[in-house]
Amino acid sequence: MVQMNRGIVVDTSSSPHSLLRPVPISSSRIDDEFWTPRRRALREAGLPSQFEMCEATGRIDNFRRLSTGKNDPFQGRVYNDSDVYKLLEAASHALAEQHDQDLAATTDGVIEAIAGAQRPDGYVHSYFSLEHEHQRYSDLTTQHELYCAGHLIQAGIAHRRATGSGSRLFGVARRFADHICDTFGPDAREGVDGHEEIELALAELYRETGERNYLDQSIYFLQARGREPSLMPAVPGAYERSYYQDHLPVTDQTEVVGHAVRATYLATGMMDAALEAHRPDMARAATNLWESAFERKAYITGGLGARYEGESFGDDYELPNETAYAETCAAIGGVFWSWRMLCRTGDAKYADAIETALYNGVLSGVSLDGTKYFYVNPLTSRGGYERADWFDCACCPPNIARLLMSLPGYFYSTSEDSLWVHLYAAGGVRASLPDGRAIEVEVETRYPWDGDIRLKIVEAPVSEIALRVRIPGWCDRATVTVNGRGAQPDAAPGTYLEVKRRWNQGDVVSLSLPMPVRKLSSHPQVTTNQGRIALARGPLIYCVEAVDHASIDLLETALSRLDEFDMRHDRDLLGGVTILRTIGERLPKPFDERSQIRAVASNRNDEVDKLPITAIPYYAWGNRGVGAMQVWIPAI
Amino acid sequence: MVQMNRGIVVDTSSSPHSLLRPVPISSSRIDDEFWTPRRRALREAGLPSQFEMCEATGRIDNFRRLSTGKNDPFQGRVYNDSDVYKLLEAASHALAEQHDQDLAATTDGVIEAIAGAQRPDGYVHSYFSLEHEHQRYSDLTTQHELYCAGHLIQAGIAHRRATGSGSRLFGVARRFADHICDTFGPDAREGVDGHEEIELALAELYRETGERNYLDQSIYFLQARGREPSLMPAVPGAYERSYYQDHLPVTDQTEVVGHAVRATYLATGMMDAALEAHRPDMARAATNLWESAFERKAYITGGLGARYEGESFGDDYELPNETAYAETCAAIGGVFWSWRMLCRTGDAKYADAIETALYNGVLSGVSLDGTKYFYVNPLTSRGGYERADWFDCACCPPNIARLLMSLPGYFYSTSEDSLWVHLYAAGGVRASLPDGRAIEVEVETRYPWDGDIRLKIVEAPVSEIALRVRIPGWCDRATVTVNGRGAQPDAAPGTYLEVKRRWNQGDVVSLSLPMPVRKLSSHPQVTTNQGRIALARGPLIYCVEAVDHASIDLLETALSRLDEFDMRHDRDLLGGVTILRTIGERLPKPFDERSQIRAVASNRNDEVDKLPITAIPYYAWGNRGVGAMQVWIPAI
Repeated sequence: MVQMNRGIVVDTSSSPHSLLRPVPISSSRIDDEFWTPRRRALREAGLPSQFEMCEATGRIDNFRRLSTGKNDPFQGRVYNDSDVYKLLEAASHALAEQHDQDLAATTDGVIEAIAGAQRPDGYVHSYFSLEHEHQRYSDLTTQHELYCAGHLIQAGIAHRRATGSGSRLFGVARRFADHICDTFGPDAREGVDGHEEIELALAELYRETGERNYLDQSIYFLQARGREPSLMPAVPGAYERSYYQDHLPVTDQTEVVGHAVRATYLATGMMDAALEAHRPDMARAATNLWESAFERKAYITGGLGARYEGESFGDDYELPNETAYAETCAAIGGVFWSWRMLCRTGDAKYADAIETALYNGVLSGVSLDGTKYFYVNPLTSRGGYERADWFDCACCPPNIARLLMSLPGYFYSTSEDSLWVHLYAAGGVRASLPDGRAIEVEVETRYPWDGDIRLKIVEAPVSEIALRVRIPGWCDRATVTVNGRGAQPDAAPGTYLEVKRRWNQGDVVSLSLPMPVRKLSSHPQVTTNQGRIALARGPLIYCVEAVDHASIDLLETALSRLDEFDMRHDRDLLGGVTILRTIGERLPKPFDERSQIRAVASNRNDEVDKLPITAIPYYAWGNRGVGAMQVWIPAI
Repeated sequence: MVQMNRGIVVDTSSSPHSLLRPVPISSSRIDDEFWTPRRRALREAGLPSQFEMCEATGRIDNFRRLSTGKNDPFQGRVYNDSDVYKLLEAASHALAEQHDQDLAATTDGVIEAIAGAQRPDGYVHSYFSLEHEHQRYSDLTTQHELYCAGHLIQAGIAHRRATGSGSRLFGVARRFADHICDTFGPDAREGVDGHEEIELALAELYRETGERNYLDQSIYFLQARGREPSLMPAVPGAYERSYYQDHLPVTDQTEVVGHAVRATYLATGMMDAALEAHRPDMARAATNLWESAFERKAYITGGLGARYEGESFGDDYELPNETAYAETCAAIGGVFWSWRMLCRTGDAKYADAIETALYNGVLSGVSLDGTKYFYVNPLTSRGGYERADWFDCACCPPNIARLLMSLPGYFYSTSEDSLWVHLYAAGGVRASLPDGRAIEVEVETRYPWDGDIRLKIVEAPVSEIALRVRIPGWCDRATVTVNGRGAQPDAAPGTYLEVKRRWNQGDVVSLSLPMPVRKLSSHPQVTTNQGRIALARGPLIYCVEAVDHASIDLLETALSRLDEFDMRHDRDLLGGVTILRTIGERLPKPFDERSQIRAVASNRNDEVDKLPITAIPYYAWGNRGVGAMQVWIPAI
């Protein structure tokens, strides 16, 4: 177990309105058969390939061109700096968990380029500095200057938390933050960025430095949205105000609308304000928005954003499968947001949302080998859709990298007298409670393939301490025992079960979270899913994929509502997955192939064509060539 | 019965490759309880209101400004002339059927304005003549000059066929046609319009005048599509080539793609070439395209065009309900196209397609009072969608008017020794066979509410003649008797049943077309409709509408596949409709309203919430205020 505490994503250690305190990445260990191979692939193959893509596409060279002073033009899209920053943040989280000479050297080289690109006044944005220095801040609506700044700040903080107070990147970031604080405000220049991000970054900078100035600036930007007249001028190419969440003051917003990534980042920033300042209005609005997003506008995978148009949220229950947008970054933004909701309340429903996204709509965004990515995550594909090495707009690859590299930071929290266990994976945690008492727990489980979890006390204080273990919302027959005795009452789904006692070394808390195959139906207002069911087991949403159904047209198959499933774990398939098998039916075709329609027979017994169906976890689809895929399957 | 023959839409009287010959509008009488009120509303309220809208929006004034010579600017959209032409065509069809002093006077006034706007060389296009005279024909891709010309020519022909050879509008149209023939061609200026229409217009002008020149010019324009390099330059704002059906030579096209109205007009023009010239390649391509459109890309209502983007056809079986585009004009274009397929082959499947569109996807385009219109015809609405008085792009209102005003021309045809009855409505027909023999038939029926049809011979030649009566594709237990005796064999669905004999006055051919409620399912590749059924009776597609289900959320209801229906004709509802009633079920909601999903119970008997369901004909929806509507209903 690593002793030195390195790497915190959201440092709520001193947040006055946070119930939960963070456990550093380096103090939380994931060593399992599920996450470890995924994270290793990202670390060993994904990060290097992303650095290569950033080099190959000129994203890093844009910075170098500034330091050389040559008058070379900018390469790529206006927001390309942000991809480099997010990748540096991912690398920093990886370094916090485990030192790596090569990765550190690569990181330092890129930081060198960025430092060289910083203007004397602290400003950093390679597009403007290379080509449009005099147009700085002239179009905050569409040009992403403060968005990029926010990612620089987050990267700087992560780098400092991983490598120590001498971080050069942190210095660069802070100087830019100071420049922004000097430039914008009620008594200076009024303005707000079209893409939220600076808000959460400045809040975290406040947490890192204790300088209230940064928090105030963050809150200024939050409150600069939705003014009349708008601070976001309707420049050519701009969307309507709701796309930027600029249609109403943020504390008056109750329905999540517009660009899904922007919306999640905004709500994340609002929760940062609620955690740090006395802002019940921000907390209430973010809570309303969360219910709008996660109770009425989220895919079963945790995917957010129904529409291609504006990469945006749709109406309540507007959740088409084939044309789902569900951008990987939006699912990630949902995790950031839900995490802060969880920190403030300790309500397990937020951890449920995090778990759902992580195992499904986030993880689908990256291939098993860690080098290919989905930007858009449909729930039905007719085939032909596959992951790409990179994107012209490459926000998703480094975003998934920074989340998964910091993943250990999301498994455990502490509070006054408790260690909270949010997520389950083999490994362990050594945490210090706020009063300084230490507790170390080892975790044995094959989760998510099996719901048996053993939490073994390695070290505990002599005084009483509570373990708060999450009973997932999907699990309605959980049992929890201590040292094999006495099932605990109150193991209700969607709660944290508290086991409070004086722990002895070797004590074992055992959770049994039964994982039958669950057949799920949608709220009937999700008209797309009427008459359909989805399969789930544990935290995993399943899908059917054409490659497992060679002789069948996948989209023409149906399940019986009453059929039972055979489960089998296949170590050789897709990095090891539990597959679900049953006998389905072929949907009848029209008698006359020239027609799209047929009369429904009054008795269908004579025409049923039975066929075997195999379902795999949704996150693993698209790793065996291109082909059709479906999550919501017709049920007869 | 009117004796004088006035009004022919497609004059195949002498077409060498047409099996069927036309019956003039004035020789075919519709006097029934279904079409007559709809057509009267359009004639008495719809046409006047459309003339008013054309005045109010400057569409007619654009022509007047040219005749006055004042330098006033053009008002509206570049293709606005075409709306006036289509409205004149509609008025001409109405005048062909029945003289009307006021309508004739209105029509003459508008024709006066158009005549005054014609330039000395024959050119007519108020946008270019008012503002951009020197830019004539400079952007055929997007500027609709020849499209407008085509509608002028069609209007001129219709006006001449209604009012006689002195038609001033015909003279204007023909001069413009001559100008176009002089301007474009392989030995002159090469070019082709981005919106097909000139092709069919010139073919009809050939039929009207016998001048081969016009047919050749039509075929030139057909063959000018799909060249390499394209004759349609990619001007700013242009779509990709397939939008204009310019991606391949027309005779190489097998899949219908791009803008749906354009695609139907193109195929219609191709069929005109196939009917008039020896062009088996055109006939074959149009047949392939028809199968693509009507067997794999058509809505059950006859609606065409799945996508909002580009108002275009989607992929095979891509037929979303809520986001269906199904422009009224595309369904109408489908009728024009199918009519020519029918003329060439006498294959009843084309008449089936015409009937489906007329009773459903076309008729839904206009309100019961004849003055409000749908441009887009979804098959599911969550509410809030309603018909409008008019549109900025107002192609649909006059298009539906010209089709319904010419409707009697689509009911009957003749061929060598036969009278063909394609569609059924109370009324009658007096037709002359190609050899001059006359036959007059009176039709008694309550179709489409009842499938009993009596065709009574009023007058017949002494020699043998065949009645060919259509057995609709939806009717699988039809019986046909003559004078009450001897059911005819071969009354197979989707055929014309031939009854050939020497007819006596008073002979009666009786058709019995049973009309049980049909529960229809889609081809399974229409994933949207998996697990859903639609209701149909006779030629009518049904839907459920919120107003009939006051206490229920319409989109949360399901039907049983096995339930029976109660039918009842309600003379006071929606102008008189047969409604279908059954007991459905409420789709179960999640136990926890915070969740969108629920586990599917293994036994659902205990939780079924029964509720009454009423279905009305789809064409009649949206006439009782705004509210939800659904055609494809979940089936449990």
